[in-house]
Amino acid sequence: MATRAHDVVTMEKIVALCKRRGFVFPSSEIYGGLASTYDYGHYGVLLKSNVKAAWWRAMVQERDDIVALDAAILMHPRTWEASGHLEGFTDPLVQCLGRCKKRWREDHIRAEEAVMAADEAPEADPGAVPREELRCPECGGELSEPRNFNLMFQTFIGPVQEDAARIFLRPETAQGIFVNFKNTLQFARKKPPFGIAQVGKSFRNEITPGNFLFRTREFEQMEMEFFVPPDEAENWFDYWLEERMNWYLDLGLRPDHVRLREHSADELSHYSSATSDVEYLFPIGWSELEGIANRGDFDLNQHARFSGEKMEYVDSGSGERFVPHVIEPAAGADRAALAFMVDAYDEEEVEGRSRTVLRLHPRLAPVKAAVLPLVNKDGQPELAREIYEELRALMAAEYDAGGSIGRRYRRQDEIGTPFGVTVDHQTLEDATVTLRDRDSLEQTRVPRAELAGELGRRLAAPWRSPKLG
Amino acid sequence: MATRAHDVVTMEKIVALCKRRGFVFPSSEIYGGLASTYDYGHYGVLLKSNVKAAWWRAMVQERDDIVALDAAILMHPRTWEASGHLEGFTDPLVQCLGRCKKRWREDHIRAEEAVMAADEAPEADPGAVPREELRCPECGGELSEPRNFNLMFQTFIGPVQEDAARIFLRPETAQGIFVNFKNTLQFARKKPPFGIAQVGKSFRNEITPGNFLFRTREFEQMEMEFFVPPDEAENWFDYWLEERMNWYLDLGLRPDHVRLREHSADELSHYSSATSDVEYLFPIGWSELEGIANRGDFDLNQHARFSGEKMEYVDSGSGERFVPHVIEPAAGADRAALAFMVDAYDEEEVEGRSRTVLRLHPRLAPVKAAVLPLVNKDGQPELAREIYEELRALMAAEYDAGGSIGRRYRRQDEIGTPFGVTVDHQTLEDATVTLRDRDSLEQTRVPRAELAGELGRRLAAPWRSPKLG
Repeated sequence: MATRAHDVVTMEKIVALCKRRGFVFPSSEIYGGLASTYDYGHYGVLLKSNVKAAWWRAMVQERDDIVALDAAILMHPRTWEASGHLEGFTDPLVQCLGRCKKRWREDHIRAEEAVMAADEAPEADPGAVPREELRCPECGGELSEPRNFNLMFQTFIGPVQEDAARIFLRPETAQGIFVNFKNTLQFARKKPPFGIAQVGKSFRNEITPGNFLFRTREFEQMEMEFFVPPDEAENWFDYWLEERMNWYLDLGLRPDHVRLREHSADELSHYSSATSDVEYLFPIGWSELEGIANRGDFDLNQHARFSGEKMEYVDSGSGERFVPHVIEPAAGADRAALAFMVDAYDEEEVEGRSRTVLRLHPRLAPVKAAVLPLVNKDGQPELAREIYEELRALMAAEYDAGGSIGRRYRRQDEIGTPFGVTVDHQTLEDATVTLRDRDSLEQTRVPRAELAGELGRRLAAPWRSPKLG
Repeated sequence: MATRAHDVVTMEKIVALCKRRGFVFPSSEIYGGLASTYDYGHYGVLLKSNVKAAWWRAMVQERDDIVALDAAILMHPRTWEASGHLEGFTDPLVQCLGRCKKRWREDHIRAEEAVMAADEAPEADPGAVPREELRCPECGGELSEPRNFNLMFQTFIGPVQEDAARIFLRPETAQGIFVNFKNTLQFARKKPPFGIAQVGKSFRNEITPGNFLFRTREFEQMEMEFFVPPDEAENWFDYWLEERMNWYLDLGLRPDHVRLREHSADELSHYSSATSDVEYLFPIGWSELEGIANRGDFDLNQHARFSGEKMEYVDSGSGERFVPHVIEPAAGADRAALAFMVDAYDEEEVEGRSRTVLRLHPRLAPVKAAVLPLVNKDGQPELAREIYEELRALMAAEYDAGGSIGRRYRRQDEIGTPFGVTVDHQTLEDATVTLRDRDSLEQTRVPRAELAGELGRRLAAPWRSPKLG
């Protein structure tokens, strides 16, 4: 397995920090939890919402060739016939026939086997382990024949449970975009190349979810479908690979922890002529953050066929008409939030004491500034609250007067607050505050009147943690 | 039925505007739509996300007694036993036994009957229409006995459809907050009174959804549970009534179109000692925007009973312990967006031409500023684009060079853009632009260098449309 340059972080430490500091809790924990489902606590909500806002800013607000969409989770069931999900969105489910009766994905067992086989005999073909030789990874028991298990959650709409009323929770947001292609063309007066962007929940009834936020049954996607003239598809594919890589790097992921991996021919979906994954070096190894696919005209043609609508672009001037090809960068908001936390996680000794610190990009940090009175008397708390109340109108800020100053700094370090604003004895004399930088630990005195401006400047500036290289 | 002072607006006009300008489309429209489910298009996404951001700002960012939560839609099924939804979240479903076979809510038919009966004989008791006298509103046929139809969508988690794996799509976000009460207490170091706020999707399998975005099966809630010492519950209830009314008024709803309506004793849920609705005068009459309820200790006690956990607050200093009471302001994001649109809708004659204009509060408007070259030549488009690119880093902005200037203004009026920035011949000479106010139609020349600052000031200022009174 690939190793990380900074391996102080483990998934266990991230899970513990998330629980301790209120980023993420197991869902319905008082009832024993619902397997691999999570609830975001205060700082987790703020972090993930900053991740989504950064995506939104880059993909919608600062471009005029992409428009927004927020399609419903519940869609007409024909959608999933057209997309192929009803028939083909399945995993091979096998059950242990031995002691433990556990259920597994056959392809996962096969992949594990392949890794072990490659360690032992690197020249052997790993795909070739015969089915009858596969065994239960838990108890070594024999396995059942695989059956195709559809990952879509199904339910019924309206008061009668009959086939005509069977609907699905969407397994991806992309199809909501395709079925709205015509509507969007009409009102938005766009001509390809143009894109439609969407952020929203999707659901997959995974047989074996796991690795904390990495693979959950309910998750949030950030997807964009970029519709282009067919002969420009390859260029736009390359363009989006670069754009999306840079997005992660600009938000602070270490360059040696992110890579692009091209899908091999046998990994490609039948409709895709090229797909590359943006991968991040998690503690569990390189894993997908985002897939960027050249989907050709597959989706629009399928929906045209199933709906009888014309899914094409017609130029009102020249009369030229074509079915656009689609380039799709599809990212996971939960995975991205997890990667940013993992990459930001650090431990260090400072003046003989250890501290844990999340060196998050200031734009992603849940709280931008913590205002702390040095001592809880002499008018300092009142003044600190005043400053806090000014700041919170402009940014996510916190007032904290509880416990020693060192303890409060450590708490803010753990949630990744980039700036500490301390009100002390001197503040009452000369109206300056101490501004503490989370990463360098540098403390500078700033006139109170210039504080908001100084913070605004620092938050807007390009950023790379001096400690993470 | 109550009448509106400005009755130029109808639901039909709103639906048509939403479709024409890309605010809202019927979901999966190319497949004939999925009944009463809607997809938000570009401007609808921006509007609704501004509504949610305004709620967030008021409820979380600018307070330090409320923390955020984002619980999963899929929860442990015991949650719904404890909350009472599994047993009691039902509507009385009747079916027409006559020609049309339609399904109805018996209570809705009864309410219609009561209105008609009261018109004919105001002194009669409207609740007293005997069941056998109720008839199908469509064809006059007899009706079946009512059966209790549970409004929760159910599905199965994991690869087997068995009772143990049956779960539900949450019918409200509130329960996600209650089950995280202990977790939140632990990390957030809060003492009642404090609140937990959440924005997210909920699902109800309504028998008869309708009225556009007003009652849909998939909808987005903005809920906050405020935990207080029992003897402070009444005061906090009154506090939140006032806060929430003011929120709608501050965002521009006309005071005579919003009211508080106290639930009568027989409307109250069994656990609630008081509930009031914030109602808006929609074209369909006064209807609920938000319910504010004093829920007592019902929810925490129920979850304590079903989970075996202690759901109480213990003061670490005094040792005092109590089960907090809960005040809940629960708003609908889709309803709020609809109300803001309806209230903002206006038509007027300007210099002999009619225009439709959404007089939205600038903070809610999907686009804050549109930058338009007066003519599409002489360097004006290039300069306008430059200004647009500066503005879009700061706010949602649009560049529009297509069609006559009048037509472009009308388009921006219809989507509610408060400020038009026009680049003309003079701009190239003296570096000033024309700033057009959507409501007053006043045009002022502003130096380009001061434009961003001027727009920032106008957007941050308190606002009330001069035309809506």
